[in-house]
Amino acid sequence: MITSTANQQIKNLIQLQKKPKARKEQGVFLVEGLKMFQEAPKEWLVRTYVSEKFMEKEEHRKALGEIEPLIVANEVFGRISDTCTPQGILSVVKRPAYSLEEILKKENPCLLLLENIQDPGNLGTMLRTGEGAGVTGVLMSRETVDLYNPKTIRSTMGSVYRMPFLYVDDLAEVIPLLKKREISVYAAHLRGRDNYDQKDYTKGTAFLIGNEGNGLSERIANLASDYIRIPMCGEVESLNAAVAAAVLMYEAARQRRK
Amino acid sequence: MITSTANQQIKNLIQLQKKPKARKEQGVFLVEGLKMFQEAPKEWLVRTYVSEKFMEKEEHRKALGEIEPLIVANEVFGRISDTCTPQGILSVVKRPAYSLEEILKKENPCLLLLENIQDPGNLGTMLRTGEGAGVTGVLMSRETVDLYNPKTIRSTMGSVYRMPFLYVDDLAEVIPLLKKREISVYAAHLRGRDNYDQKDYTKGTAFLIGNEGNGLSERIANLASDYIRIPMCGEVESLNAAVAAAVLMYEAARQRRK
Repeated sequence: MITSTANQQIKNLIQLQKKPKARKEQGVFLVEGLKMFQEAPKEWLVRTYVSEKFMEKEEHRKALGEIEPLIVANEVFGRISDTCTPQGILSVVKRPAYSLEEILKKENPCLLLLENIQDPGNLGTMLRTGEGAGVTGVLMSRETVDLYNPKTIRSTMGSVYRMPFLYVDDLAEVIPLLKKREISVYAAHLRGRDNYDQKDYTKGTAFLIGNEGNGLSERIANLASDYIRIPMCGEVESLNAAVAAAVLMYEAARQRRK
Repeated sequence: MITSTANQQIKNLIQLQKKPKARKEQGVFLVEGLKMFQEAPKEWLVRTYVSEKFMEKEEHRKALGEIEPLIVANEVFGRISDTCTPQGILSVVKRPAYSLEEILKKENPCLLLLENIQDPGNLGTMLRTGEGAGVTGVLMSRETVDLYNPKTIRSTMGSVYRMPFLYVDDLAEVIPLLKKREISVYAAHLRGRDNYDQKDYTKGTAFLIGNEGNGLSERIANLASDYIRIPMCGEVESLNAAVAAAVLMYEAARQRRK
């Protein structure tokens, strides 16, 4: 049992919670809670840590199955957890590596293209909603917040394991590739004349979603195949980025069900 | 100029930021930032505080119009602000008081009924999205998080000034009143057989949205006029509460535009 915060593994876990760079260098991310542990593809699990207290419950020990966890003293576990009330189980998970080719190979893909999303909760919520709406992949600009941020991981509610995603160096280079494959790239933008529900999303579709404060950059917006608007009543100027994405993705899902 | 945190007004502002009870007793809430100041109905403004630094810019002084603010030393302003990078303007605002009668008087109302929403950001986002979608009012159970929480107020992006809302002692008492007025009360619920887009929301409509972790209580779900489902692909079990509300509200908006 690990009883000291001076332990090398504990020190490393604290680094992995706090530092995107450490996570990147080691090619891993952290997940917390029993549900996130259970939903993880077994071959992604690198190592699992549990608190003494966690191991007291038989159902917990059962849930571990064939995984042999490292047991950590309760006080020490509090230090490696990112939450105020830790569930007592934390896993180091290997990052998936999706290629653009893989993400585009599905028939009639429905993609989310994110430019510089900064809120970890928004990003996680978009993955979760995307999976629910049947989105087939998420492409993100380099400046987008770290998807492996503990808060993002939490708000994906497990979709991080199932939704293919990729950071790309420059969205401006990817958009022409999508168009060449007859994927229509829609930007929700002021220059949009048609409401979002007046377009056909049953063929290859991609939705561009811009930064929370500034929206899409002109550079990226200029590359869209078409512009749409989400009509807004009252004095609302824009919707929350995750909400706007949800409205568009669920409209695509609605059309694809018919 | 106020230069000390021992000043009575400063002490009170700190209380108002932190304590729901203090806000309630004084019948006020706090808003921060120039945009929230400018959008506030003038008769709601009780008192406005600005930092020394804020007053240095002419456009800021202009934006104040006829409002005479109290000037606060920069360090002291940092203490009364709820944000990491304060914009330097904070107002004490009188709470609105809407009656149920007022909220229901619109023709074909579209309402949001919230049971025990706990995340301040979710609640604020629902008000913002609701205004955008043309929702006419929001009714909340008593246990719903404080709408005047600084984080909620921020995430409303000004909709708090325009969206009528009301905390009710018991949603179970209000739902029958809505039904009597021919408002259909829809619950997104496991027992729903029809997809949400198969119902007609052009007449009086209310959407029940439950707590983030537990969904709707059986007691409240039992009172719904009808049950609907938001179809979900993959292994997604539920959507974020603000996202689910957005999908439903924008479907109602879509139908009402036709």
